[in-house]
Amino acid sequence: MRVIVPFATREPKTRLAPLLDTEERLAFARAMLVDVLGAVRGAGHVPTVLATEPTEVDAPVVVDDRPLTPAVNDVLADWTADRLGVVMADLALVTPAALERLTTPDADLVLAPGRGGGTNALVVADLDFRVDYHGASIRDHRRTARRGGASVVEVDSFRLSTDVDEPADLVEVLLHGDGAARDWLRDHRFELTVDHEERVQVARSGR
Amino acid sequence: MRVIVPFATREPKTRLAPLLDTEERLAFARAMLVDVLGAVRGAGHVPTVLATEPTEVDAPVVVDDRPLTPAVNDVLADWTADRLGVVMADLALVTPAALERLTTPDADLVLAPGRGGGTNALVVADLDFRVDYHGASIRDHRRTARRGGASVVEVDSFRLSTDVDEPADLVEVLLHGDGAARDWLRDHRFELTVDHEERVQVARSGR
Repeated sequence: MRVIVPFATREPKTRLAPLLDTEERLAFARAMLVDVLGAVRGAGHVPTVLATEPTEVDAPVVVDDRPLTPAVNDVLADWTADRLGVVMADLALVTPAALERLTTPDADLVLAPGRGGGTNALVVADLDFRVDYHGASIRDHRRTARRGGASVVEVDSFRLSTDVDEPADLVEVLLHGDGAARDWLRDHRFELTVDHEERVQVARSGR
Repeated sequence: MRVIVPFATREPKTRLAPLLDTEERLAFARAMLVDVLGAVRGAGHVPTVLATEPTEVDAPVVVDDRPLTPAVNDVLADWTADRLGVVMADLALVTPAALERLTTPDADLVLAPGRGGGTNALVVADLDFRVDYHGASIRDHRRTARRGGASVVEVDSFRLSTDVDEPADLVEVLLHGDGAARDWLRDHRFELTVDHEERVQVARSGR
């Protein structure tokens, strides 16, 4: 199956600014992209990066500088093969096994909810479906599918639910990641700490 | 399988204090407990509540006023049957299907990681195993099992990873819950809102 991996190159991951400067955020975002592309291939699928500008990466790149929703819908509008996947580039915990759970169900639409109401990954078999990534998109995608009479399966995956946006998300990468993003954080001296309330955080040690 | 559901009755869910007063937090915590007990039964298992004080609930209650770790380890020390489950009482998204994924694997230890490094649910077959819920407990539980030569399976479940501690977690209950906790929030006028950065939040509407 072809799997589209949208990747925004401009000012990626702004909510990580308390921990990472602009150049670091771009490098970390690319490390996550590499992990996602590897997992897509590991699950036996074929990735295409849908980037906001030309990007050097080990996969075909389609450039579309529009926001996420119209860019993905443009791909969906042109798609003629059986099924198409869309997997976000910041799922640093994704594994081939998690992606197989996304691509195996036989349904018009398979959804992987993201924490906070997003839709982190999906597979579309019903080609009339269009995405809308604004706000609580998982709810909107359910409703759209229901209205169109499409069958929907939701995948219950912690790994697919974890998009890395905020400092707290780096905890998950250090605890559960095993790829380029985890290595990037370690190489840049991030480590786990536990605060006085027993909450786990990340901290960056001195050089 | 017997499944222990630890439940703290004193000052539960203090991090929800910005949204709920003490009495409400207790009522909401009990609604989540009811959902967890229902899911345990729905998956064909038998729950016992391990509570810090006598609690009226539709299940056997063992009272132990010590902290979570010694209380659970006391149960583990006495346990003589084949396997034992421990499932936290604040997993408001849990379903029988998610619990079946926890109880099905044939391993000495099955772990369901919680967001933020916790261990939200586990099944122990190796009875020498003891829990330690402090800090990044999922990492400690992995290490302990590895040292003891136990086989470990981790369950990749968004529903099991979501313990409800903070206001942001209520978003998940409203979006993905379908039981008493979701109903409690709706009855108390909680609803989803989307802020100017497209982040989904909960808000409480006026009476």
